[in-house]
Amino acid sequence: MTSAATVRQIAVLGSTGSIGTQTLDVLHRHPELFSPRWITCNTKWEDLAAQTRLYKPYGVALRDESAWQSFRSAVPEFTGPVLCGEAGICEAAADVENDVVISAMVGFSGVMPTMAAIRAGHVIGLANKESLVSAGSILMPAVAQYEATLLAIDSEHSAILQCLIGERASDIERFIITASGGPFRSFTAEQLESVTPAMALKHPNWSMGAKITVDSATLMNKGFEVIEARWLFDVPAERIDVVVHPQSIIHSMVEFVDGSVKAQLGLPSMLVPIQYALTYPHRKPLAAQRLNLAAIGQLTFEAPDLVRFPCVRIAYEALKAGGSAGAVINAANEVAVASFLAGQMPYLGIAKTIEWCLNYIEHVPHPSMDDVILIDEDARRRAAEYIYITTTKTQL
Amino acid sequence: MTSAATVRQIAVLGSTGSIGTQTLDVLHRHPELFSPRWITCNTKWEDLAAQTRLYKPYGVALRDESAWQSFRSAVPEFTGPVLCGEAGICEAAADVENDVVISAMVGFSGVMPTMAAIRAGHVIGLANKESLVSAGSILMPAVAQYEATLLAIDSEHSAILQCLIGERASDIERFIITASGGPFRSFTAEQLESVTPAMALKHPNWSMGAKITVDSATLMNKGFEVIEARWLFDVPAERIDVVVHPQSIIHSMVEFVDGSVKAQLGLPSMLVPIQYALTYPHRKPLAAQRLNLAAIGQLTFEAPDLVRFPCVRIAYEALKAGGSAGAVINAANEVAVASFLAGQMPYLGIAKTIEWCLNYIEHVPHPSMDDVILIDEDARRRAAEYIYITTTKTQL
Repeated sequence: MTSAATVRQIAVLGSTGSIGTQTLDVLHRHPELFSPRWITCNTKWEDLAAQTRLYKPYGVALRDESAWQSFRSAVPEFTGPVLCGEAGICEAAADVENDVVISAMVGFSGVMPTMAAIRAGHVIGLANKESLVSAGSILMPAVAQYEATLLAIDSEHSAILQCLIGERASDIERFIITASGGPFRSFTAEQLESVTPAMALKHPNWSMGAKITVDSATLMNKGFEVIEARWLFDVPAERIDVVVHPQSIIHSMVEFVDGSVKAQLGLPSMLVPIQYALTYPHRKPLAAQRLNLAAIGQLTFEAPDLVRFPCVRIAYEALKAGGSAGAVINAANEVAVASFLAGQMPYLGIAKTIEWCLNYIEHVPHPSMDDVILIDEDARRRAAEYIYITTTKTQL
Repeated sequence: MTSAATVRQIAVLGSTGSIGTQTLDVLHRHPELFSPRWITCNTKWEDLAAQTRLYKPYGVALRDESAWQSFRSAVPEFTGPVLCGEAGICEAAADVENDVVISAMVGFSGVMPTMAAIRAGHVIGLANKESLVSAGSILMPAVAQYEATLLAIDSEHSAILQCLIGERASDIERFIITASGGPFRSFTAEQLESVTPAMALKHPNWSMGAKITVDSATLMNKGFEVIEARWLFDVPAERIDVVVHPQSIIHSMVEFVDGSVKAQLGLPSMLVPIQYALTYPHRKPLAAQRLNLAAIGQLTFEAPDLVRFPCVRIAYEALKAGGSAGAVINAANEVAVASFLAGQMPYLGIAKTIEWCLNYIEHVPHPSMDDVILIDEDARRRAAEYIYITTTKTQL
């Protein structure tokens, strides 16, 4: 039997999102191993209230102040700490009692809480890839300085991590990140012109939040994953390739210096990478459907089309530019995706907005964290301006 | 620069065979890492003489006495030891100066030299799977007793070994061994009746010796690999599956308790598993063509057909029976394949011969090594009798 002392305390930042709810599911399957210490959200106080009643965390935090007030009124019986604002979420992230912090917020909002967990020297399961895209050059030195451990909760980077276990970093030749190709893989350039939000929100293989689903449709998600891999594993962009694999069974691969390739495979489910981050470097049983390759029959592969899917190319360019480029494309992407989802801009405008911002916003070679916050704000404003100008078709 | 002290001394048993010549090629690519200490053969003294002149080993051994005499006459300038007979090969295998012993003989002849290397506590690269099929229950306890290390040089078991690096044995759920399906994968039962040796010797993906090529056509090779995996990794037969994968790109897989599957992939080449056994647990650069999945396009999978390919079923039955069953099916297979290649028996007779021997030769539950040698001899005699009787069509 496992003694109480071995139950690990888990902070779930962004617990009402897709990864957050699945993380709580994994914790719930293994009460002998894990206990949810903190759960936090942005605005969804009703979901957080339900999670609080069900999972009984030590404490909660809500970024939005009115959501925080609603939560307090709705769950008066909860006697643990109820923190508010970004400061509250950062406090939850930094709690010395945390054994693992799951960083599962959406977008740039995850940067500061992730940094707080890093500064506390925690083991962090990072589902918020935007943190590394925006501020990888700042977060990774901090990971080393504070002896934190950053484990990606992304099926691709979890696959790479699993393939690297027991191997030497010096034996790595290349990463091969797989991409489903998204719902528009076979669309012509003409068909792409009339893509609607409803079409972009239907991913062929994965059930995810709205923002990342659109990122998967544009392949910007894959571009971000290339940047994420560069930071997580310290491998330069030239040694990170993308291959389209529509079945999403091979989650990514590592090629070694002897030409041997290792891959991690599975049915599309985030439960495995979530649990792996919690049990790393070991594993625990997970009752879920097993892979049956004979039943699946075939796995296919093709090179990504960087003309129809320019976001992959833009991400490589941002990675090559370094400095503020990651923060700029991330901010521009967040604004552009929101605009597209709100019906204010056509699908093809997303890549155009990001590329415009990358090309025309002043480059900062070595930004500090404070700089990144300002760069993010500025890029959002500039992206919104670009979208306004290009969609209102004002002519002088 | 690497100092001379780090050059590892390698004994290559069966150096004139397919794996042996490729092993010498790998050693030749890395003179700063490896030096061929011993090279040995059965009868091919001319090849061994050429290898001796080219690779300059410390010593040589020839199993066949007349080949040994021919070698001595042909290479009078060679001043190193020239050993003779099985005893000579065992002496080479046991040499305390060996850092790694590559056991690449064909068939049962590999058992005693492999045992000699085990008793010397060596690191052994085992390409001779028949050793484990015939005498796994004797060899593996000896590996533990003499603290030897057995690393398979088989693309499948090397794949499994690479997938297991850094993982805990207790986290293994299942092995999935891939099979090309051989040249007759799509043959009907009727077409299988008229298979000729020339047809069986054309493997679609791998260039190998004649015996293993026929074993690949009947899928007995795959059955043997299941038995080999059982002994090498101490996983019971119920947790070893076979999946047909005609492209031979995924070399095998391991499923873990969390449902995650790891695979090792590569172009069909034995250079990677040979070099991996020599550099294990690390890797060294190998200049060879890299895998390009987008160029390959698709990988396919299907369940093996145990009706058209009964040898897989027979191997599982032998594994379940334990004791002498492995030695019996291995001996029967060696005799049957030789008979088929000599044009004395139809292709479908191979499985029939093996199954007859498995069913009708007395089972010995716990054979010693001496027993195994007698069982091997007896099974060969009985297999030859069965073949003689069934092919001469004598009717009483």
